[in-house]
Amino acid sequence: MPLTPEQQAEIDAQRSATSQTLRATAPGIEAHLYQAKPVLDHGLVRAIDYMGDDAAIVQAARVSYGRGTKAVSNDEGLIRYLMRHWHSTPFEMCEIKLHVKLPVFVARQWIRHRTANVNEYSARYSVLDREFYIPAPEHLAAQSQQNNQGRGDVLEGEEAQRVLDILRDDSNRAYDHYEEMLGTDGQQGLARELARMNLPANIYTQWYWKTDLHNLFHFLRLRADPHAQYEIRVYADAIAQIVKDWVPLAYTAFEDYRMGGAHLSRGAVEVVKRMLAGEQVTQETSGLSKREWAEVMGVIG
Amino acid sequence: MPLTPEQQAEIDAQRSATSQTLRATAPGIEAHLYQAKPVLDHGLVRAIDYMGDDAAIVQAARVSYGRGTKAVSNDEGLIRYLMRHWHSTPFEMCEIKLHVKLPVFVARQWIRHRTANVNEYSARYSVLDREFYIPAPEHLAAQSQQNNQGRGDVLEGEEAQRVLDILRDDSNRAYDHYEEMLGTDGQQGLARELARMNLPANIYTQWYWKTDLHNLFHFLRLRADPHAQYEIRVYADAIAQIVKDWVPLAYTAFEDYRMGGAHLSRGAVEVVKRMLAGEQVTQETSGLSKREWAEVMGVIG
Amino acid sequence: MPLTPEQQAEIDAQRSATSQTLRATAPGIEAHLYQAKPVLDHGLVRAIDYMGDDAAIVQAARVSYGRGTKAVSNDEGLIRYLMRHWHSTPFEMCEIKLHVKLPVFVARQWIRHRTANVNEYSARYSVLDREFYIPAPEHLAAQSQQNNQGRGDVLEGEEAQRVLDILRDDSNRAYDHYEEMLGTDGQQGLARELARMNLPANIYTQWYWKTDLHNLFHFLRLRADPHAQYEIRVYADAIAQIVKDWVPLAYTAFEDYRMGGAHLSRGAVEVVKRMLAGEQVTQETSGLSKREWAEVMGVIG
Amino acid sequence: MPLTPEQQAEIDAQRSATSQTLRATAPGIEAHLYQAKPVLDHGLVRAIDYMGDDAAIVQAARVSYGRGTKAVSNDEGLIRYLMRHWHSTPFEMCEIKLHVKLPVFVARQWIRHRTANVNEYSARYSVLDREFYIPAPEHLAAQSQQNNQGRGDVLEGEEAQRVLDILRDDSNRAYDHYEEMLGTDGQQGLARELARMNLPANIYTQWYWKTDLHNLFHFLRLRADPHAQYEIRVYADAIAQIVKDWVPLAYTAFEDYRMGGAHLSRGAVEVVKRMLAGEQVTQETSGLSKREWAEVMGVIG
Repeated sequence: MPLTPEQQAEIDAQRSATSQTLRATAPGIEAHLYQAKPVLDHGLVRAIDYMGDDAAIVQAARVSYGRGTKAVSNDEGLIRYLMRHWHSTPFEMCEIKLHVKLPVFVARQWIRHRTANVNEYSARYSVLDREFYIPAPEHLAAQSQQNNQGRGDVLEGEEAQRVLDILRDDSNRAYDHYEEMLGTDGQQGLARELARMNLPANIYTQWYWKTDLHNLFHFLRLRADPHAQYEIRVYADAIAQIVKDWVPLAYTAFEDYRMGGAHLSRGAVEVVKRMLAGEQVTQETSGLSKREWAEVMGVIG
Repeated sequence: MPLTPEQQAEIDAQRSATSQTLRATAPGIEAHLYQAKPVLDHGLVRAIDYMGDDAAIVQAARVSYGRGTKAVSNDEGLIRYLMRHWHSTPFEMCEIKLHVKLPVFVARQWIRHRTANVNEYSARYSVLDREFYIPAPEHLAAQSQQNNQGRGDVLEGEEAQRVLDILRDDSNRAYDHYEEMLGTDGQQGLARELARMNLPANIYTQWYWKTDLHNLFHFLRLRADPHAQYEIRVYADAIAQIVKDWVPLAYTAFEDYRMGGAHLSRGAVEVVKRMLAGEQVTQETSGLSKREWAEVMGVIG
Repeated sequence: MPLTPEQQAEIDAQRSATSQTLRATAPGIEAHLYQAKPVLDHGLVRAIDYMGDDAAIVQAARVSYGRGTKAVSNDEGLIRYLMRHWHSTPFEMCEIKLHVKLPVFVARQWIRHRTANVNEYSARYSVLDREFYIPAPEHLAAQSQQNNQGRGDVLEGEEAQRVLDILRDDSNRAYDHYEEMLGTDGQQGLARELARMNLPANIYTQWYWKTDLHNLFHFLRLRADPHAQYEIRVYADAIAQIVKDWVPLAYTAFEDYRMGGAHLSRGAVEVVKRMLAGEQVTQETSGLSKREWAEVMGVIG
Repeated sequence: MPLTPEQQAEIDAQRSATSQTLRATAPGIEAHLYQAKPVLDHGLVRAIDYMGDDAAIVQAARVSYGRGTKAVSNDEGLIRYLMRHWHSTPFEMCEIKLHVKLPVFVARQWIRHRTANVNEYSARYSVLDREFYIPAPEHLAAQSQQNNQGRGDVLEGEEAQRVLDILRDDSNRAYDHYEEMLGTDGQQGLARELARMNLPANIYTQWYWKTDLHNLFHFLRLRADPHAQYEIRVYADAIAQIVKDWVPLAYTAFEDYRMGGAHLSRGAVEVVKRMLAGEQVTQETSGLSKREWAEVMGVIG
């Protein structure tokens, strides 16, 4: 449970204070605002603010004076056309701001998405809380033998218990020592900017993260993908739920043309054409490497 | 007058449709939303949407769960501290979307600010309107003799008239020929993407332009500066009025620490110190080049 | 012919001054350095500098201390894997700087690629040359009737002649007036920053443009595409020739997995699967819109 | 000593392989290429590649065909003018690629500079080495009592020893457990992407980092500043030495106009003017806050 009663009370207060605005408003995301979606054992995602809606995408594409008078079906067709043809700038006209609490090793992957605005909790300035990510037993996966950056079977029994004990004990000890080095009030303790170096990568941090819809879709495509590490994928999934309610037309187009689609290479297109012409194509006769052949069969097989 | 009755009616409709929202709302900018501020002879700036307010800057700086309970005076002090010490990320948490109608030669300067989202009216896809910037007589400036990219005295009399005649005649002729090349309905005309090349740089284009407050301040610092070309400065001035009403604390800090301040070089700081110690410093004894000496005297003289 | 004898002499001088370096050197692009590739009637592309080669991509992917000891075949496999799986950061480790002379309307499209460094010739500061793009007769295309931003048949006969006459006459007149407004030496003329507004969009400008290989590939994918406007496509084609010689392995991967490939939507993948299973699928039974069906058939038909 | 004999041998090999190039070459940085500058106890900075030199900055500013024929004194004046007037694009025409080995908590600060290209060693894919940053006794600073993100006195005696013991013991235990969780060959161990979460923030990582000179100067201004954390400042200092030899004119201008200069607010400029006019100004009569008054006195006092 990531929220204290005080935090929940603050969220309730935020949700009870309604304002009048002339701006484009998206009812689907208003229902999410400020609410904490729990992620992992102590993490969360909260939508804090947004700009624009499906109509804003269309408006930008048309660069019209008003919001347009076209029927919704036309808006949908235009949004799908824009997505299919990789027109990215209209999607950049929508913006979202999230509050995220996440383990440091997840934050380190996430921050590689550079086209975003970030304000992270500062461990130079403040003291971090004693909150560490400890995987649930069903996510305690072994190293994959096939894939250098993938997971294999789930560890079980004593093996699993041993890992959980290490992660818990080391986290707690590291935090005890962190506090000890910081010292108590009145005592001269180690500078916070130094003491933090003792904390492991499963400690939680938090940040405000703001990005536009085009770059958010790019983030989701990479991080909601089955090849992404589970611990960042659950954040991407939580965000995807919010986006779906915020810009339903754009999100459906994203699912159809990005998440659910596939990119075929020049060689793969040739293979498909030969197969459709009735030819029996094998990896050997395909001209594709074994690895790519397996990938293509994974798409169309 | 940049608006047709239809456009004004659309704006009125937009301004009459109020929604409820849980988002941070800034009353100062709500009063501006959708309204067209006239700029130059046919240009305009309209605030279309915004995200955040002064409190959002503070909230990001504190990465707190709520909007904070500190008194306004503290918020002001923090915002001024952030501005003075070039902490840019909290200001990035605010975002604004503008609709701008502007001459192409102004758009060409403006677009050099890369950290922004832009959707411009497409002259490949659509036909441009017959609207050209013709300077008002008081802005018809001669080339500066001192400054290679500056203006000198205002042209007068026949000289001015001759220039205005050229600009008007050439614009109109270019547009007549543009239309002629496009052809009339039913006739096979030149492709729009080719015909547009005949149009001069004073024709008006329009775009939706969206950026965060940090990058907007950077834009204003460069483009509201007296050294900026007059024709872009008037746009920066119009935007500055909107920003002032949107985030009054941040804007005042920006005026005090950016627009109204001055950057002194290492050498200039030494000169000031020597002067304050009672020394009579001249350009020759200052160690500064003539050009920099003149610039420093312009600041403290 | 875009070069004066003085310019050609300078290029010859640059090409005759060899230095010793410890940096990674790519012989394929050394042969291009400083050479002017003519584009359109007065335009050009010149490679001015570069950083990295195919091996630098591999080195970054491996973050090794040295350049690696793997055989070339492994490098090729890794580069193809990186391209296939959209790993962009290793390609960002290569950088290229180009000198480009191009019509203003092409520059206006080009500049929309924001992740690049640009220094453009300043018409505030300097006087532009009398050089305008006039299309060759075989590129004088009519507006497409099917595609709002496409070209149809080539104009012929009197119609073509009329267009060419307009473009030539208006360009020349605009330039005569530009010069007249600037005034002659000793006379007080209109400021350059104002006079330039009379010049049409087919006047040539020039810039230094620097970008990394990942963003360059993105540029080429969009601008060397058959749907791009001819006048920018010829620049993309000229650059592609340089890139091919600079990083041959990466370029071939780019051709196979980007330029020559195709993206299929979720629905299109389903259609392909059904077809491969022997089903007779039509647009009506495909679940795809007419437009998307036509696009998919264009890929696999 | 951060280098193994094998690594040193590789560097020696790289330094012995000279190539011919037509590119701009900067002898000052050639002497640094590939060499490892030790930083902290196990860190390093190595210049791997560069593009451009002082002349390339001038060339971009002039957008000339050649490298220009102006005397060096003119180049210097132009570079100083560009720096003084915040013209950033010519400096973007130079690019540098560095190999850096650094503690994770330093990497987390560093990565906030978004306008750069990065390839980091992947702990999902590979196993990290047993190398941890342990501060030298003279850098074991207490928390500042004045400044929430600063350092005070150095810890001494038992207190210091206790801190060092904790950092060393916890690092080693965390690494032992990391290895244990990974398992030995043949045994099924925890996935690397999970095991890494047990490692503290003082473990070393490494990356290739590439940026342009303008953004590098911005990095140096913030990170070579006395207010930056010591552990990142030493990296900035090591890089500054390389830059100084690479582009000596630009670096000197940077020192004079950025590092060594000061920004005065509108209010501070007024204070200086009043003082120069002979007035006795105090904090109370200055109109400045206590904090800003102290900062201004720190500059001119």
